[in-house]
Amino acid sequence: MEKLDMLYRGKAKELYSTDDPDVLWVKYMDQATAGDGAKKAQIQGKGILNNRITTVLFRLLEAEGVKTHFIRRISDTEQLNEKISMFPLEIIMRNTAAGSFAKRYGIEEGTALKRPILEFCYKSDELHDPFINIDGIVALGLATEEQMAEVSRQARDINDKLTSIFDRIGVKLVDFKIEEGVNPQGQIVLADEITPDTCRLWDANAKTGTVGHLDKDLFRRDLGDIIPAYEEIYDRLAALADREGIAVE
Amino acid sequence: MEKLDMLYRGKAKELYSTDDPDVLWVKYMDQATAGDGAKKAQIQGKGILNNRITTVLFRLLEAEGVKTHFIRRISDTEQLNEKISMFPLEIIMRNTAAGSFAKRYGIEEGTALKRPILEFCYKSDELHDPFINIDGIVALGLATEEQMAEVSRQARDINDKLTSIFDRIGVKLVDFKIEEGVNPQGQIVLADEITPDTCRLWDANAKTGTVGHLDKDLFRRDLGDIIPAYEEIYDRLAALADREGIAVE
Ligand SMILES: Nc1ncnc2c1ncn2[C@@H]1O[C@H](COP(=O)(O)OP(=O)(O)O)[C@@H](O)[C@H]1O
Ligand SMILES: Nc1ncnc2c1ncn2[C@@H]1O[C@H](COP(=O)(O)OP(=O)(O)O)[C@@H](O)[C@H]1O
Ligand SMILES: [Mg+2]
Ligand SMILES: [Mg+2]
Repeated sequence: MEKLDMLYRGKAKELYSTDDPDVLWVKYMDQATAGDGAKKAQIQGKGILNNRITTVLFRLLEAEGVKTHFIRRISDTEQLNEKISMFPLEIIMRNTAAGSFAKRYGIEEGTALKRPILEFCYKSDELHDPFINIDGIVALGLATEEQMAEVSRQARDINDKLTSIFDRIGVKLVDFKIEEGVNPQGQIVLADEITPDTCRLWDANAKTGTVGHLDKDLFRRDLGDIIPAYEEIYDRLAALADREGIAVE
Repeated sequence: MEKLDMLYRGKAKELYSTDDPDVLWVKYMDQATAGDGAKKAQIQGKGILNNRITTVLFRLLEAEGVKTHFIRRISDTEQLNEKISMFPLEIIMRNTAAGSFAKRYGIEEGTALKRPILEFCYKSDELHDPFINIDGIVALGLATEEQMAEVSRQARDINDKLTSIFDRIGVKLVDFKIEEGVNPQGQIVLADEITPDTCRLWDANAKTGTVGHLDKDLFRRDLGDIIPAYEEIYDRLAALADREGIAVE
């Protein structure tokens, strides 16, 4: 496999074409951003950790039957992914009120939700990723009604599976964002990344009354260094994969 | 029927209890507000017109089988309504991109939507009526999943019927907001009002390239006096009801 032109430089990753038109070469950067790009920093070691974490999580999810874009990790910071025709959507699942949801509806962060909440945002830097519902998605031509039914089904299934995975490593999955799209075979699959950049992860063993943030909120809210937290997540996930006999490359 | 205590003074109406616990006495005021309450004015004659317009529209909808809270108009500015246990929701239907929708998604106002869009906002002055989806509504306990299925069905049905009604009087129904709730018999019904305060109505006969606003956007955007526009809507609706033999008191 040969790395060719850079196709896109996002906020956390660089995408390159390869000699196979169906395969992308993805490089995880050390860059961190927050607050709609207002806050930006280089955090040494983040790229390596996120490349590893998303690898383990995609392997664990695949072992439970979830279809993903993941092919294989090829270096500390790089991996190969199927080239996906992405829906321009942030697909958000919430189990506990936090972040923008808690603020928007005046609910205390940490309040358990009666049931998982699925939300969509239209991925557009220009429009600041506005909240959108399925009617809006279909009317704007971002996806069809049938595609959204499948995306919704997958999002809820992935939430169930991820919640259980994190539960097994003593971490509460508060909420997360995924992206999906259509792979070269025409199937809707999970793409992009699942990392502490894109999940809210609270240590289940934190002292009562405190939140043990193990995710990007440490950076967003200036609560401390993210690297030890990301390492903790990686170590626990790697140990889980090892216990369950799942190869993680 | 006797008018008793004032229960609530909203932005456009006053609600009074009556000697029948299931009946509300509603007074339409001359007050107009816009921009989350930032803009406020007294507009003489608005109360009379909206009381009459909502009466005709509810009568026309009832004639087509829609269940409403409407009992009867009792004076120029007053009407009796069934007392409803309201869902704290603004139920919005859109046929053409306009207002906050056009702005949120960067679409030119006036763009036809591929299909009608149903949106919900959580009615809360404090939170500034945030956008919410059905998962959120259920998780926050604002309504049940089953109730929201029925509310959605009714909203789409009312949109079809209202679109046709306005079409018959040469008016394009761009979008509108309704409210629903549970009546004393336990049925989900249309409540509150349908007026040019709560609809975007464009004259179908306006010169090409211009928008003939016949609604509160005249006030919101300082485009002119609302009274002649509201009178125009009332006159055309009254003539329609007359042609169709529907009593409008
Ligand atoms: N398998 C894939 N095929 C094509 N595009 C992808 C794939 N996985 C992720 N992407 C897209 O690549 C970009 C990833 O880079 P990232 O730095 O996260 O960007 P952004 O700043 O847009 O979030 C995103 O726009 C994402 O939608
Ligand atoms: N039939 C009804 N029973 C009980 N409440 C109603 C009924 N119809 C409307 N309402 C409520 O009465 C209020 C109407 O007054 P309005 O001036 O429009 O208030 P607001 O400023 O809250 O929009 C709204 O809060 C609405 O939800
Ligand atoms: Mg990204
Ligand atoms: Mg109102």
